[in-house]
Amino acid sequence: MRLIFAIPMFTVLMFYGVSAQLAQAQVPGQLNLMPVPASVHMGTGQLVVDPSFSVGIGSAPDPQLRRAVDRFLNSLRRETGMLPLDMSVADASKATFVVTAARSSKEVLELGEDESYTLEVTASGAKLSAPTTLGAMHGLQTFLQLVVNTPTGFAAPEVNIQDKPRFPWRGLMIDCGRHFIPLDVLRRNLDGMESVKMNVFHWHLSENQGFRVESKKFPKLQELGSDGLYYTQEEIRELITYARDRGIRVIPEFDMPGHTTAWFVGYPDLASAPGPYTIERRWGVFDPAMDPTRESTYKFLDEFIGEMTKLFPDQFFHIGGDEVNGKQWDGSPKIQEFMHSHDIKDNAGLQAYFTARVQKIVSKHGKTMLGWDEILQPGFPKDIVIQSWRGQDSLAQAAKLGYRGLLSSGYYIDLIQSAAQHYAVDPTSGAAANLSPEESARILGGEDTMWSEYVSPENIDSRVWPRTAPIAERLWSPQNVSDVNSMYQRLDEISRRLDWLGLTHNSSYFPMLRRIAGTDDLSALRVLADVVEPVKGYSREETSPVEPTSLMPLNRLVDATRPESSTARHFNDLVDSLLAGKTDAGTKAQIRKWLVLWKDNEARLQPIIGQSFLLKEVAPLSQSLSALAASGLEAMDYLDRGERPSDDWKAQQLELVKRAEEQKAQLLIMIAPSIQRLIDPTAPVEAPKKVGH
Amino acid sequence: MRLIFAIPMFTVLMFYGVSAQLAQAQVPGQLNLMPVPASVHMGTGQLVVDPSFSVGIGSAPDPQLRRAVDRFLNSLRRETGMLPLDMSVADASKATFVVTAARSSKEVLELGEDESYTLEVTASGAKLSAPTTLGAMHGLQTFLQLVVNTPTGFAAPEVNIQDKPRFPWRGLMIDCGRHFIPLDVLRRNLDGMESVKMNVFHWHLSENQGFRVESKKFPKLQELGSDGLYYTQEEIRELITYARDRGIRVIPEFDMPGHTTAWFVGYPDLASAPGPYTIERRWGVFDPAMDPTRESTYKFLDEFIGEMTKLFPDQFFHIGGDEVNGKQWDGSPKIQEFMHSHDIKDNAGLQAYFTARVQKIVSKHGKTMLGWDEILQPGFPKDIVIQSWRGQDSLAQAAKLGYRGLLSSGYYIDLIQSAAQHYAVDPTSGAAANLSPEESARILGGEDTMWSEYVSPENIDSRVWPRTAPIAERLWSPQNVSDVNSMYQRLDEISRRLDWLGLTHNSSYFPMLRRIAGTDDLSALRVLADVVEPVKGYSREETSPVEPTSLMPLNRLVDATRPESSTARHFNDLVDSLLAGKTDAGTKAQIRKWLVLWKDNEARLQPIIGQSFLLKEVAPLSQSLSALAASGLEAMDYLDRGERPSDDWKAQQLELVKRAEEQKAQLLIMIAPSIQRLIDPTAPVEAPKKVGH
Repeated sequence: MRLIFAIPMFTVLMFYGVSAQLAQAQVPGQLNLMPVPASVHMGTGQLVVDPSFSVGIGSAPDPQLRRAVDRFLNSLRRETGMLPLDMSVADASKATFVVTAARSSKEVLELGEDESYTLEVTASGAKLSAPTTLGAMHGLQTFLQLVVNTPTGFAAPEVNIQDKPRFPWRGLMIDCGRHFIPLDVLRRNLDGMESVKMNVFHWHLSENQGFRVESKKFPKLQELGSDGLYYTQEEIRELITYARDRGIRVIPEFDMPGHTTAWFVGYPDLASAPGPYTIERRWGVFDPAMDPTRESTYKFLDEFIGEMTKLFPDQFFHIGGDEVNGKQWDGSPKIQEFMHSHDIKDNAGLQAYFTARVQKIVSKHGKTMLGWDEILQPGFPKDIVIQSWRGQDSLAQAAKLGYRGLLSSGYYIDLIQSAAQHYAVDPTSGAAANLSPEESARILGGEDTMWSEYVSPENIDSRVWPRTAPIAERLWSPQNVSDVNSMYQRLDEISRRLDWLGLTHNSSYFPMLRRIAGTDDLSALRVLADVVEPVKGYSREETSPVEPTSLMPLNRLVDATRPESSTARHFNDLVDSLLAGKTDAGTKAQIRKWLVLWKDNEARLQPIIGQSFLLKEVAPLSQSLSALAASGLEAMDYLDRGERPSDDWKAQQLELVKRAEEQKAQLLIMIAPSIQRLIDPTAPVEAPKKVGH
Repeated sequence: MRLIFAIPMFTVLMFYGVSAQLAQAQVPGQLNLMPVPASVHMGTGQLVVDPSFSVGIGSAPDPQLRRAVDRFLNSLRRETGMLPLDMSVADASKATFVVTAARSSKEVLELGEDESYTLEVTASGAKLSAPTTLGAMHGLQTFLQLVVNTPTGFAAPEVNIQDKPRFPWRGLMIDCGRHFIPLDVLRRNLDGMESVKMNVFHWHLSENQGFRVESKKFPKLQELGSDGLYYTQEEIRELITYARDRGIRVIPEFDMPGHTTAWFVGYPDLASAPGPYTIERRWGVFDPAMDPTRESTYKFLDEFIGEMTKLFPDQFFHIGGDEVNGKQWDGSPKIQEFMHSHDIKDNAGLQAYFTARVQKIVSKHGKTMLGWDEILQPGFPKDIVIQSWRGQDSLAQAAKLGYRGLLSSGYYIDLIQSAAQHYAVDPTSGAAANLSPEESARILGGEDTMWSEYVSPENIDSRVWPRTAPIAERLWSPQNVSDVNSMYQRLDEISRRLDWLGLTHNSSYFPMLRRIAGTDDLSALRVLADVVEPVKGYSREETSPVEPTSLMPLNRLVDATRPESSTARHFNDLVDSLLAGKTDAGTKAQIRKWLVLWKDNEARLQPIIGQSFLLKEVAPLSQSLSALAASGLEAMDYLDRGERPSDDWKAQQLELVKRAEEQKAQLLIMIAPSIQRLIDPTAPVEAPKKVGH
């Protein structure tokens, strides 16, 4: 599901103001752990990790734990540059690192499984103990994050960690319907999830633009509804096993009754209007919806859900339920007639009727239904779970009505917001802050959601990571772990660690820039690309020069740039410092150095900009950055001379900033607000249009 | 096999002197094709490659060609940033690009298959015609290399290409014995081979340090001889299929009777001295060798070769045969007795006896034997093939005796020589230049060899690529394609294209430097790393601070730096220009810019050098670079003032250069000879010690 209407927004820069209020150091400076554990006590020594390092399992044989230890050693070898014959699995009595799990986690992981662990590292060895395999697996990831390069070798610091999660449901949703996401991409994202202790992969498998699962009962679903881009049942079983080995449950979502055009290509009789249907290529909310009035619809769904619940072993089954515009229902005399004869007042009522029928089918097949906000109707069994995308109000409302819920509103990573914005969203804040303890306990956690209109296998990792890591921390760590500066410091390190898993959020940047430039000389393009971000929220659609479709290559600068410019963040911090009175020569010199670089960059980029069709659209952006920087330098001159600029000058420059803040090539120059503050520290910094929600 | 004695060497810098003599532009400047085709005629227009681009097959259905077209489109999508729904396979009558192969290549590719093709690109479409599927596959790779980013979109220039290879055997050998190389690494290297039209993967599968193939008849080979690191037969069959789809034959090598310690761990009775044996961890030539005097040895080999010739379908079967030191034979009274009673005069004679017996076994199983120089003995059947590692003399000698041969001497990429050095080696030069046409025709081509003492999955690509591309060109293109400057220009582009295949020769550099630095601030380390190269030839062993083994992590700077520093190459070109009289301000300013960067770098690296145990050994190298650069700046001052430096100053500086030329941390500073020439343009530039092959 997708948010398609505008909701109250706040500027992407708000966290600079917020950070001061939240300043509470959570962990000793040296530890770059994410998520921050519940309790950490540090010693002074360290445990060296060299080729003689060994791991022993201190509990009864458990194949899953053994595989986790093998993978742990492989990760450790990769991060330290060691080889397969270095480090080993040894007898627990002799091992450097002893891992113990009191009992094996179940074959099919369950919501609420004990995930706690205790990790003790001393100069002579380390011990990890957990009540379950799942807890031990989390502890292994913590150990990996502890190992750093030191003057005497790779080593983990002496530390005593007691840890457990705050919420039992910590998920990532990937939309494989709008753009098909290949299995290798999913696998590396599961590796990333494991490393930050996320435990649910929500697999969004059907959309207007594609039906992505092989059905043996209804093969026309994938044969006609996927362009050949779907997962076989064998591949799905393998991915579920892969996820399970990483402590991750897999929840399938088959969105219904809307978002179903791709189903109707093979099975038009399911729809509320006659076919034929073709796979949708545009983005948005469309009219086709299942016909809730025909018994054949439920017969189909009974068989289909029966097949899929056998394929996906998890207890929960997601039926979507969002964004039905009702137009096909309004347009069908037969459906209107049905509503009248069944005393159904409106389309919401008709959807409730449909959802109730589907819930019974899901329940009949032994599963618990999960769906987006819209499915919530009084009278439903209390075991269903509501996933809130429309805001914290609906989550609180569900909890009050006795339903369990998940928060996704605020964790929409496709909207290209900052890590700090997502980090500030807490499942138990807002409307949920006033719940009783019993009601509050119904909030199971949350999921961030990677809707896939603008992602390909090449750039999806850069949208998911590293921003998923602070969301994982929000869902795992104690609620008072909320210092934004600490988060960003640790995030830089965690982002680099994720590289070792094969995630491409960092590494895909340069090849994409090189393709755009058509040359190896990237220095000028990079200076520009480093300081811009894609337009925010839903303005990617609104600002598109042509109607975007699923056929459109994703090879423009807007596709390559990162959701969050750390260059801009650092520059904005420098300007904050200056305006807060830190007028030392070093701060000023750094600000000037950046401004000169940007001012001169236009002249450096100009010679290559005509050589590549992908660079052409960037020309106005480059000019704008150069002009902004020139303006910033003039402002610095005034500040240095202690001189007040004229009102005319100010007005002129602020007009320039305003123009610079407008999107160009669907990109925003993220230092514009800081330049405005240099020009006029007293002028209100306005939220850029359509930035965030 | 490995060269273990010193042979005449030449400096890695020699190609700077050579390049002028070889200056003949081979291709129009705009085309970055490698290997250069036999004939190219350019037009003036271009064919735009956009999402509507389509490929049609104009000949009879051929599953292999269809798969090649699918992979071609995937490569094109990846390089242009397009998606699976962009571009398509279409009916030949409507397609943008029509591909025709007159006949299908055989299921098992054969030596001498017609590999030619004709490719015509016009503004309105393109046509590729070939007599065989294999030829068409080569033409697809040429088309991929033609597509570039232009002001009006991705496009291929109008061109007419007639192409065919000079040699029918163009191979890469990878040693998977000394270090196990996982299948994914092999697959991406096969992709790289396909892109430069190489057609033989020589798989070196057994060594003292490991036996890497599953044998079902003799399972203790892999069970006891591989540390668990081996390929199953199923995996081998899959890799052979993968290679075949890329037009690549797979030749297995089982080295015997020496290099066989790992066999003897499971089967000690094969050896010439009593066991038990353990897997060898050191590098070098060792005593263990098969016992050529026992019939049980041949019974074992008959069964083993029978199993392996069924697994590997290629006509050729490599039995190694190199580097038997004979010590176990000398030490065995029984073997001495056998030699006496069979009138065998020496160990070479005993090996000849062994090889003749093995040749009969290989022949009995329907295969043609291939081996290193040492196997060549008069009287062997004329169909065997000699692979020359000891020099071109032995290749010429084999040809004169009527044997076919391959050149590997000069293509030892593990010796960390420059691309130019390998490029200058031609299979029909040296002693082979004087062969009769009939003799010369026996030279089938060559193979470059990746011996694996110092490579891991992380850095092997950077040793194989891009230097394998110019070797591939040497073996494919007309002999007069030999301009070194053109080669380097095209190589930079080809190297970047290889990135799209997932090869890590460029991308692994930064993660490895980051691990060494233990920090994200790599700028100073990179300045140093960019201008050094690992020690050359066999001096990696000789200069090692401790005895190297297969257990040793490969995570030092010497493992991360590239075999060839393009920074040094460019700087040395600048100094060449200056000393050749190009004393313009631009050249001088560039030289000074580099020298200042290097001079100041020591002060920038110093603060972090103590933080990482992997950086410590680099300190003297960094100091040396800084001192060299300071000396170079003083020399530039003298030059600028038109002043002759004193003999004392010169002597002092040349002494400094001499010290700087000594390896430090097994690394060489590649600008040292240029600094020497700035100090004293008349002093002879000596070959750095042990630089060579």
